[in-house]
Amino acid sequence: MSHLSASYSATLRVLLPDSPGSFARVAKAIGDAGGLLGAIDLVRVEEHEKVRDVTVQAGSSEHLEAIVAAVRAVEGVDVEHVSDRTFLLHLGGKLEVVPRTPLKTRDDLSMAYTPGVARVCQAIAADPDSAWNLTIKKNTVAVVSDGTAVLGLGDIGPEAAMPVMEGKAVLFKEFGDVDAFPLCVPTKDVDEIVAFCKALAPTFGGINLEDISAPRCFEIEQRLRDELDIPVFHDDQHGTAIVTLAAVVNALEVVGKRLEDVTIVMTGVGAAGIATADILMHAGARNVIGADQRGAVYRGRVDLSDAKAAFAERSNPDNRQGTADELLAGADVFIGLSAPGAITAAGVRTMAPGAIVFAMANPNPEVAPEEIAEHVTVVGTGRSDYPNQINNVLAFPGVFRGALDVRASAITEGMKVAASHALATVIAPDELGPEYVIPGVFNRDVAPRVAAAVAEAAERDGVARKARSS
Amino acid sequence: MSHLSASYSATLRVLLPDSPGSFARVAKAIGDAGGLLGAIDLVRVEEHEKVRDVTVQAGSSEHLEAIVAAVRAVEGVDVEHVSDRTFLLHLGGKLEVVPRTPLKTRDDLSMAYTPGVARVCQAIAADPDSAWNLTIKKNTVAVVSDGTAVLGLGDIGPEAAMPVMEGKAVLFKEFGDVDAFPLCVPTKDVDEIVAFCKALAPTFGGINLEDISAPRCFEIEQRLRDELDIPVFHDDQHGTAIVTLAAVVNALEVVGKRLEDVTIVMTGVGAAGIATADILMHAGARNVIGADQRGAVYRGRVDLSDAKAAFAERSNPDNRQGTADELLAGADVFIGLSAPGAITAAGVRTMAPGAIVFAMANPNPEVAPEEIAEHVTVVGTGRSDYPNQINNVLAFPGVFRGALDVRASAITEGMKVAASHALATVIAPDELGPEYVIPGVFNRDVAPRVAAAVAEAAERDGVARKARSS
Repeated sequence: MSHLSASYSATLRVLLPDSPGSFARVAKAIGDAGGLLGAIDLVRVEEHEKVRDVTVQAGSSEHLEAIVAAVRAVEGVDVEHVSDRTFLLHLGGKLEVVPRTPLKTRDDLSMAYTPGVARVCQAIAADPDSAWNLTIKKNTVAVVSDGTAVLGLGDIGPEAAMPVMEGKAVLFKEFGDVDAFPLCVPTKDVDEIVAFCKALAPTFGGINLEDISAPRCFEIEQRLRDELDIPVFHDDQHGTAIVTLAAVVNALEVVGKRLEDVTIVMTGVGAAGIATADILMHAGARNVIGADQRGAVYRGRVDLSDAKAAFAERSNPDNRQGTADELLAGADVFIGLSAPGAITAAGVRTMAPGAIVFAMANPNPEVAPEEIAEHVTVVGTGRSDYPNQINNVLAFPGVFRGALDVRASAITEGMKVAASHALATVIAPDELGPEYVIPGVFNRDVAPRVAAAVAEAAERDGVARKARSS
Repeated sequence: MSHLSASYSATLRVLLPDSPGSFARVAKAIGDAGGLLGAIDLVRVEEHEKVRDVTVQAGSSEHLEAIVAAVRAVEGVDVEHVSDRTFLLHLGGKLEVVPRTPLKTRDDLSMAYTPGVARVCQAIAADPDSAWNLTIKKNTVAVVSDGTAVLGLGDIGPEAAMPVMEGKAVLFKEFGDVDAFPLCVPTKDVDEIVAFCKALAPTFGGINLEDISAPRCFEIEQRLRDELDIPVFHDDQHGTAIVTLAAVVNALEVVGKRLEDVTIVMTGVGAAGIATADILMHAGARNVIGADQRGAVYRGRVDLSDAKAAFAERSNPDNRQGTADELLAGADVFIGLSAPGAITAAGVRTMAPGAIVFAMANPNPEVAPEEIAEHVTVVGTGRSDYPNQINNVLAFPGVFRGALDVRASAITEGMKVAASHALATVIAPDELGPEYVIPGVFNRDVAPRVAAAVAEAAERDGVARKARSS
């Protein structure tokens, strides 16, 4: 049975006969089907029956359907209605755009809108920098995607990508108090996406690129960094890199190894993989071997894209070949930024003692943590329902909070490394352990500490346009 | 002295000696300078003095400065600090992007974000129409401007236009419960603006174009209407037209004239002017004469743009020439969509008895209502601090509310006329009067009635993609 999760949960409205044991039979059916019984609410009492809302958690969509079928099969019980809680939560979208100040009187209107607003417009026309004080630019970032590389789902298009971008905006607000607005564009053309993002610059204080497939994401980010004076940050690359570096550094501490000494095997040599390998090597790692679906990325392999060929030049020092599973033999760290099944539990069993596995494919990890638990010391995934969640939410809210606080014109390498260091050290040395190498996503210390480190690094790197305190 | 307004108001922090009559001297200085004394708050008490916050209203920026100078000149009184209330209200912008549902627990996170969100993405990928249910598209419109024709200020650029677009979004939420997001683009190129707006289509349920100068606005709107399946509405044209038609119809009722019989002189033959004249003629007006800064727009005038030449063909039936003031002689209705000074009070005095003047230039009307009050029966402006405010806020929230409620694919002529009729009839016949020809902007009946009429017209015109009730 796979891990039960609220993300596969439903509320069943059931009609139960008013006789002893009727609810117990429902509870048994749910339990026998492997479901987890949650909240039970009484909806109404009728003459010979009671109507209850019963919430159950399952391990997958199919499992949820099986549980519902099991309840329907209970003698004398009717299921009136099944509400999928995840879909319910998404009805109408997850964001709202609201006024920061009330608009209830004529006086309010004459200040927030005409005629008063005209003076504010004139002040900005006279001094465009004052837009940072007098408009939403101060605290607002765009979350831009073309929907080509969404979670582990791939190219699902802009409409289907929106729930992820909305979720991202929710996390920006919740953790960084950053106002973020999602924009999913119906084009895959690099020039068109660049033009679109450039047109956002007067409105926003930063741009978070998201789920844009490689290699287009590299060119889009580079061109925007060159041409815009607001921070542009491809979260799949740099957010992932920042959080993974922090987790690897802390996990190595737990197993008593040094970054300089370990062999790191990585599946997925896309945007996230290359950025993560680069930040690891920048931090001292000397033996990082990337593998794609065809195996190791090595110098001389003829089918490599430009980005992968360049990556082969600076990684895999012994120029190893073979499948991902073969590369794992004797390796110390596995980093999965690919897809379910990229490695097997059998492969993991060949890793060196004190093995570290971060299997971050979303929503399903490269290898199920349950299958390898006995063979590795530290396991992490990208999911919120396992320990050691390597989640970008630990980075991007604090990174943009810090950047906005000093009106940074860019996100530098120094700011990323500072973010990673701040994140790793949120866990005190005496708290570190196999199940706690990275702070939890609800740890409220994370974003402020990351933000402060990022702002300080921005000042150090000369990209801050404002002091932190004011 | 011009009209005192909250839009020109400040809070002065004053240090007053602890002696009898010291505050009275401050109050007298404000009054002598023509200011209006508002709220007075005690901030703190020191050994020999009191510190108070004193709010004053003025008639202009210069007037406000003069009042502050007068207070500073009072013997024994210090002004510690002056806060302009309009600027204070704009600090940090006027909008916030907030989650519609809380995100406080791991369960919340696993439904709103990974892994649960993946199922929602897949559902939309399988059925793109479900984006209308499962994303913010259902209730969200973009407010797009290039900052070329902002209020009466002209081409002030995208950054400086933002406070107006933010204000617009505030009004959308407040009056229509529509989530609106402002986007000000740094290009005046028609192709680039069209491409930008087309890229917004997956995210938004509609696009409100705003403050884009003529003739580009015509082409941009037409192309977007042809190429997109979400409503595109240039508010300066159609919002103004809807509200003005409603006000003219009601004002003619007050003076007992018929639209078919009256002579209407209009200054400003830009986007708003042409759309307003067109809707008036569509509704029955037969003698509409437009004038620009060089006077009447007539057939044969050699310096006309294409849009104005086409307009001359369908307006000004007697092909009159002359200045705007000259055209006013004997006219029944004046509609100003131009700039302060476009007509004079002397010109207004030559109008026919029962004259109607809508002087809608923002922030300063074509002619000051105070100067013509004795000579006309109905006066309206675009300002919120006079009666009969011809404000687009009476149209656009309801128009988009109605369009979104039925997932309209376009805003048709029928929907605009229905909106205007619904707006006019919010005022019952026995309530109509010279100072009440258009509902107040805070009249909560307006948006729902406009929305219902627009939704009904959308169904009638075959552009509704969903029934209203569900």
